[in-house]
Amino acid sequence: MESQKLESQEPKVATSSPLVPLMYSNRVVLKTILECGDDEIGLFGKTVVVGGWVKSSKEVKREPMAVPLKPPEASPGPKDVTCVEMVQSRIPFFKTIIRVFGGSISAQSVREKLEPSIPKPPPPSKFYLQINDGSCFKPHDSAIVPVSASQVLPTGTCILIQGVLEKPSTHGKQTIELKVEKVFHVGTVESDAYPLSRKKLPLDSLRDSSHIRPRTTTVASITRIRSALDFATHAFFQNHGFLQVQVPIITTTDSEGFSEKFQVTTLLGNTSKKGEPVTTLRPDYNEDFFGRQSYLTVSGRLHLESYACALGNVYSFGPRFRAEKTVSLKQVAEMWIVEVEMAFTQLEDSMKCAEDCFKFLCRWILDHCSQDMNFLADDHYKKPVIIYDFPKAVKPFYVRLNDDGKTVAAFDLVLPKIGRVITGSQSEERFDMLTTRIKDFDLPRDQYEWYQDLRRHGTVKHSGFSLGFDLMVLLTTGLTDVRDAIPFPRTHGKASN
Amino acid sequence: MESQKLESQEPKVATSSPLVPLMYSNRVVLKTILECGDDEIGLFGKTVVVGGWVKSSKEVKREPMAVPLKPPEASPGPKDVTCVEMVQSRIPFFKTIIRVFGGSISAQSVREKLEPSIPKPPPPSKFYLQINDGSCFKPHDSAIVPVSASQVLPTGTCILIQGVLEKPSTHGKQTIELKVEKVFHVGTVESDAYPLSRKKLPLDSLRDSSHIRPRTTTVASITRIRSALDFATHAFFQNHGFLQVQVPIITTTDSEGFSEKFQVTTLLGNTSKKGEPVTTLRPDYNEDFFGRQSYLTVSGRLHLESYACALGNVYSFGPRFRAEKTVSLKQVAEMWIVEVEMAFTQLEDSMKCAEDCFKFLCRWILDHCSQDMNFLADDHYKKPVIIYDFPKAVKPFYVRLNDDGKTVAAFDLVLPKIGRVITGSQSEERFDMLTTRIKDFDLPRDQYEWYQDLRRHGTVKHSGFSLGFDLMVLLTTGLTDVRDAIPFPRTHGKASN
Repeated sequence: MESQKLESQEPKVATSSPLVPLMYSNRVVLKTILECGDDEIGLFGKTVVVGGWVKSSKEVKREPMAVPLKPPEASPGPKDVTCVEMVQSRIPFFKTIIRVFGGSISAQSVREKLEPSIPKPPPPSKFYLQINDGSCFKPHDSAIVPVSASQVLPTGTCILIQGVLEKPSTHGKQTIELKVEKVFHVGTVESDAYPLSRKKLPLDSLRDSSHIRPRTTTVASITRIRSALDFATHAFFQNHGFLQVQVPIITTTDSEGFSEKFQVTTLLGNTSKKGEPVTTLRPDYNEDFFGRQSYLTVSGRLHLESYACALGNVYSFGPRFRAEKTVSLKQVAEMWIVEVEMAFTQLEDSMKCAEDCFKFLCRWILDHCSQDMNFLADDHYKKPVIIYDFPKAVKPFYVRLNDDGKTVAAFDLVLPKIGRVITGSQSEERFDMLTTRIKDFDLPRDQYEWYQDLRRHGTVKHSGFSLGFDLMVLLTTGLTDVRDAIPFPRTHGKASN
Repeated sequence: MESQKLESQEPKVATSSPLVPLMYSNRVVLKTILECGDDEIGLFGKTVVVGGWVKSSKEVKREPMAVPLKPPEASPGPKDVTCVEMVQSRIPFFKTIIRVFGGSISAQSVREKLEPSIPKPPPPSKFYLQINDGSCFKPHDSAIVPVSASQVLPTGTCILIQGVLEKPSTHGKQTIELKVEKVFHVGTVESDAYPLSRKKLPLDSLRDSSHIRPRTTTVASITRIRSALDFATHAFFQNHGFLQVQVPIITTTDSEGFSEKFQVTTLLGNTSKKGEPVTTLRPDYNEDFFGRQSYLTVSGRLHLESYACALGNVYSFGPRFRAEKTVSLKQVAEMWIVEVEMAFTQLEDSMKCAEDCFKFLCRWILDHCSQDMNFLADDHYKKPVIIYDFPKAVKPFYVRLNDDGKTVAAFDLVLPKIGRVITGSQSEERFDMLTTRIKDFDLPRDQYEWYQDLRRHGTVKHSGFSLGFDLMVLLTTGLTDVRDAIPFPRTHGKASN
């Protein structure tokens, strides 16, 4: 069934109504309906268009008296295509439930008036649909109930429907129901092949379906928290007068001096398809795209210093890359990092800023994602610990040498289970000392000429830090594997799309 | 001279004072002082710490009467190390001027009371310093005046000073002066080697010093506008209920079907330093990091569709890559792109969203960066034009085929001089049609299995667009070459850091 152009059929909604359709898509998101709280009575009688994907559906044989809505395993229905993913030991139920009464799925209105107190043989079945449009997490089995189907719909089916909001006809926890008038669109599903059709879906098996897993309750919650954290990051720095600077992803500079790096090249060509003979190559980097060896950046802090030493307080937020083959729950090949540099500052200034930023992000998530947080996170930490002044060998070449000649002005902000979420330092602003450090690390000096220029011309004390954004998501969601916190994780041997 | 720990010396500022030091760096940014407007009188007598880089300095022989402050070429000073960069035909003057009176640069206070009406032979010289801390653009020759130097300071010198704000002792345009009490830090400059020491610096020559050019008035303005546009982008989409999804940079999918791509590899190793023999290689991609050929993404829209077909309205904002060797004023190898996908929408919905987004960004910049805009942009456009329904051969494989079988549901938003800033489309949601299109483009089907899954399971009409963020910066700054709008541009044969 094709969806139709909806403009002409769009329900007329008074401007004072809370049921404002989502901008650009001409439908009301479920969040708008479900989060009305005590105002739900005011919604009764309103016509809305909603759309989403079926998470589960259930047929319930209708008793002479109305059957209270219960979780699927307690219901007497003969068919059950519920999809329940496992999150650690907790099992989420019922994001949004659409109860579907008898009648075929069609674009025509079904308006049979049900009178539960008058038994009519044979009683029709009721059909419950749990649908998800990604707009919110609803912890209880609230329900909106359309009246327009003769069968359960498989998990993963997409529907776009118009109906009238009504008082629930049953005594379940739901406080509002949707009576369907029109079905605009049904996007079918190949149930046998659909990755979310199975009953039990632990997070690690979901990783093999990174393109479908955002339809699960868990990954949808993670996505909303991740998006909120992203905006909170920008809000924190912009509120404090920092300028955002997008540092380059392709670089010829090794930002740390000891990182495993990906090379970026056009030398290998795009032609060696399966079965074709492979050309023998001699890498002549003069012939490569940039005329020299170039890499994916492991850190943007060196480039960011260039802008800090001109504009003061700056930050960057982007993907960084490490070609490390070791398996880790906290590290994959491609991760998003927030980087900060501040001119006219020293180590303790960065420690203060890092701590404030960390607290701000935590507070933001508690304020803006409380339902998702309640669903996901099960641990509470008291506060992070900051460790500072590390042996010089374990930190990058650019970190400022302390007066003892042995330690450097660096700090880590660490947390239980997660480990290091933020790492920061005061940069070496003394030209001669920086030159010595580059030599000590046996780094090619010509690669760092531009960086030394920042000390050669108008040097200033400055410091900054890097915040592992994916680890921040890991922390706030209570997950244990960073691959579940990243939309499309990239690990050694794995990049399927 | 070393900078000192400032906490103990930090001036005590009443909480009601507008002179709140910048968070974490214990100095007052010049913007705070210069943008007080008519309240400047209220600042007289306040002690502040300011820091920045010398843009120009000038010695003026002191006349018996105070000499009005004038632009450098009209002043009678014998020394002039002014740095003036050229922006098209306009020459910016005087960001911030610090007038320096006689006395050596030291941390000790110089409080000589000047009485212009009483000539004292020999009259000491006055020294004017124009400094820049990146906090604002100030179009007029406003001045803050410290009293603590015996010479001009070369362009590029970094200083951190404490002083008292006073009424100007001369009759120039400046409305406030800073009388220096302490100099905490001077970061010297090698003038002969400093790229900004030269008199005339057109933007194209500045590109060779991408690490130093943020100290110029022009690039500082561009950076502030770029940062504001960045935040405005997030604000627009978050305000409209979109979720931000960070799509992968490393991908095995060709997102358009005809793009020149960079390969990402660890096969070439990091070892072929100059002079060493180069190993002969056979690219066996089973041995590569991801076990197959992988690329830098040219577009994130395919991956974004995966999230739209679960969560509704989503956007992404990140770097995208094209290995095109042709020289263009509008295209470099690495560019930042805003991408949008919306489930339950069609072409016209995306056109409306693109137009709203474009207008919002323009309005935001006018509201938040008016001084920078006045300095940079010299053209006004009436409004953009949207072109839609293109021949199918010129758009990517995934764009929805129109009923005529010849055109596809795509649109471009174009502007004079810049050309296409936004390109959008409705995606092909019909499984069979998408399969045909992939075949027509002669693309390897296994690469798109995951993408076809989105049609196989619960397909829905959806559309979206890509906004060239760097082109948006180009547009709002009135520049002509996108390399000037990007912090560290990457072009064929050029990546120097």
